[in-house]
Amino acid sequence: MQVRICVAPSPGGVPLETGVRPLAATRAHDLTVTEVRLTPILVADPPLLNTQGVHQPYTPRLIVEVVTAGGVTGVGETYGDTAYLDLARPLADALPGHRVTDLNALPALAARVCGDSPDATGTGAVDAAGLRGVRTADKLRRSVVSAVEVACLDAWGKTAGLPVHALLGGKVRDRVDYSAYLFYRWAAHPGGRGETDDWGAALDPAGIVAQARRLADAHGFGSFKLKGGVFPSDEEIAAVRALAAAFPGKPLRLDPNGAWSVATSLRVAAALGDTLEYLEDPAAGTGPMAEIAAALRAGSAAPLPLATNMCVTTFEEIPEAFTRGAVQVVLSDHHYWGGLRATCELAALCATFGVGLSMHSNTHLGISLAAMTHAAAVVPRLDHACDTHYPWQTEDILTERLAFHDGALAVSDAPGLGVTLDRDRLAALHRRWLDDDGALRSRDDAAAMRRADPDWRVPAVPRW
Amino acid sequence: MQVRICVAPSPGGVPLETGVRPLAATRAHDLTVTEVRLTPILVADPPLLNTQGVHQPYTPRLIVEVVTAGGVTGVGETYGDTAYLDLARPLADALPGHRVTDLNALPALAARVCGDSPDATGTGAVDAAGLRGVRTADKLRRSVVSAVEVACLDAWGKTAGLPVHALLGGKVRDRVDYSAYLFYRWAAHPGGRGETDDWGAALDPAGIVAQARRLADAHGFGSFKLKGGVFPSDEEIAAVRALAAAFPGKPLRLDPNGAWSVATSLRVAAALGDTLEYLEDPAAGTGPMAEIAAALRAGSAAPLPLATNMCVTTFEEIPEAFTRGAVQVVLSDHHYWGGLRATCELAALCATFGVGLSMHSNTHLGISLAAMTHAAAVVPRLDHACDTHYPWQTEDILTERLAFHDGALAVSDAPGLGVTLDRDRLAALHRRWLDDDGALRSRDDAAAMRRADPDWRVPAVPRW
Repeated sequence: MQVRICVAPSPGGVPLETGVRPLAATRAHDLTVTEVRLTPILVADPPLLNTQGVHQPYTPRLIVEVVTAGGVTGVGETYGDTAYLDLARPLADALPGHRVTDLNALPALAARVCGDSPDATGTGAVDAAGLRGVRTADKLRRSVVSAVEVACLDAWGKTAGLPVHALLGGKVRDRVDYSAYLFYRWAAHPGGRGETDDWGAALDPAGIVAQARRLADAHGFGSFKLKGGVFPSDEEIAAVRALAAAFPGKPLRLDPNGAWSVATSLRVAAALGDTLEYLEDPAAGTGPMAEIAAALRAGSAAPLPLATNMCVTTFEEIPEAFTRGAVQVVLSDHHYWGGLRATCELAALCATFGVGLSMHSNTHLGISLAAMTHAAAVVPRLDHACDTHYPWQTEDILTERLAFHDGALAVSDAPGLGVTLDRDRLAALHRRWLDDDGALRSRDDAAAMRRADPDWRVPAVPRW
Repeated sequence: MQVRICVAPSPGGVPLETGVRPLAATRAHDLTVTEVRLTPILVADPPLLNTQGVHQPYTPRLIVEVVTAGGVTGVGETYGDTAYLDLARPLADALPGHRVTDLNALPALAARVCGDSPDATGTGAVDAAGLRGVRTADKLRRSVVSAVEVACLDAWGKTAGLPVHALLGGKVRDRVDYSAYLFYRWAAHPGGRGETDDWGAALDPAGIVAQARRLADAHGFGSFKLKGGVFPSDEEIAAVRALAAAFPGKPLRLDPNGAWSVATSLRVAAALGDTLEYLEDPAAGTGPMAEIAAALRAGSAAPLPLATNMCVTTFEEIPEAFTRGAVQVVLSDHHYWGGLRATCELAALCATFGVGLSMHSNTHLGISLAAMTHAAAVVPRLDHACDTHYPWQTEDILTERLAFHDGALAVSDAPGLGVTLDRDRLAALHRRWLDDDGALRSRDDAAAMRRADPDWRVPAVPRW
């Protein structure tokens, strides 16, 4: 290996720039998509509580497989609700003939062939489940595009012998830290539906601390996020204080999913300002978030940062939120943003405006966890440990589950995503989807809650 | 080719996702950099006038070659002034052992091994030539990184049999429009230095129209940019009006490189508001640009857009400029921004904030023209024909010059950039650099002007 400053360029004796490999043309053709398979599945989910209700016993996910002319299959995963599935079908129909490298064209292709979902609402409205932020037609399409993009990157990587992170410009870290995701929960789903587990209920500070201890012991997590908005804020403040006492010095977060008023948010921030790493979506919407952030800035030289995966989930929402200083950390969900490359663009936007970046996690399986790990591996600045639901998903469709060590996932250098589908498991979870009468094919935490409380309605915000 | 919505996933009879090609591991190793060659050259440049002075008879460029273990050589090009060359040497030293896919790591690597150039000034200062915007240490390094990144992409593309645009996510257009770049100019360099050409002088409206006619006839350009700031603004207004009369309906632009006061800028905007596609850098700095833009917005429902390649040339300058509405079009120079992938990030920032994007061109050769064409091919929104100096560069170091048809370049689908070095030409232009006594190794338009006017000094801004 050598570096030379030329005195005069050497026409001979060095490799020529014309040394293109003879297989090149064939290889490019190999990248053409010949088939797309969509497999909706239902995945077991524990009775985890949030401000909208409780997780249903099974949650829908969509598995996308892209097959190339070269005989390689790439896999992707996204939200599996019927609204997404309806958009995925025409996109899958349109994909054969394109190459797996044709990623910039996917959003326009999706807009052309999918059109607007009847389930889309205008900018500003939130989705039925209420937890995923705005539900614009573009965002719904992007959530589907994300799975296609990931499957294409997986197929391209497998063909080229390169990990997905290399196709994104190469990893800048060898491991990605994740945070323990703590939930108030019941011991079992109402009526004994769904799968069972041995976690028991967690409905008070002691239960949350015990859950945190078990997650930390099993996976080595060194930071903790509590899903709040379930109980009046004083109870959740007490839970965070109990965590701080049990895990001194460890980063802690609290996320009530926008359930609080500005006043309640400021009261919680005053109580936990020295305890929390950041406060996530205390109130719903950029306006209230900006108001809270301004008040915190006015009251402290080192104000408690606000994080969001609700009021900034699309590029359209960025200008107002960033120019008003409404959020200090964006928790990216690569499904919302349109894939891993869009997540890198988001990272550039955040870095430019001095906004931190970390990653959100909804109920998902190992394909999406692997995908977010590749994205997290390549962004120059990753300011906090990423969220992960994965320990709660005891079912997966991989031959080998991803394993956390010391709270982190190693960034895979295997070709593609570095995961392998277990087709028997995929078939079993698809069979569950086929057998469902439709009640579970779109996530509805409020409907699940009504199994325990028939009068339950999604609370109006601010709830407290 | 088929798309299937699975009824049940088929475990047999379809390609498996484990179909990784046996050569994969070897191929990844092939992408390791084994050698980097830096070749500074001097390229003939005509006596083109701008507000700082006149182009020197030869301008420095730096050619970067990256050789891989697989025996492929990729090429890149950037500014060749000594300040850049001094940064390129340690970066080239550090590169062997890295893979050509390790692109995200380049800025940090450059910061570590190159340090701050002694030629860097703090944010806010402009470079000696005055035309390239701020001259921060990071920007100087990025200009060098850009050439390494392009060379890596070229080598990767040649290895994979993929065009550079595919490595950037795939082209969304098959051709990229360019604009004729019109200059006030002399017939020859003072003292008869440098190369000669048959363009003659262009120092008035008739000369500019004749130049535009010849460029349009030769290359099919359908839009025109006049480099202004050379004469009092009324003379340049007259030149633009002569162009509008000669080429009715064609997009026109005027760029005085920040030479005007706010008042002069507004006077020119009032005179040419209905004639220009945009006004480029009328005044120097984000503050004056914001003032002009605000006045234009106040005076019109469809205000004349302001473009820049001077007050927004780094990510650090974006927040103020975008939030103040100081610019409506960013003219990206991929060298400034750190390469093609950084240009894509800039494109995402512009799209998010509703700011248009096009591309700037300084004196450069075909490698950089090919590189900017690949970048321009992949950004979803490209709002205007790109600038190009290329027709003024009669020398190149390629076996075949890039050719405009109907004012556009076809986007190459050949592996890599799609260009081939002519090593004899490279050696000849490098010999010219070796033979120079140092006077031309850093561009200095004011020094060149002093050959004609010994008292010339770079004019203070605003000049008019």
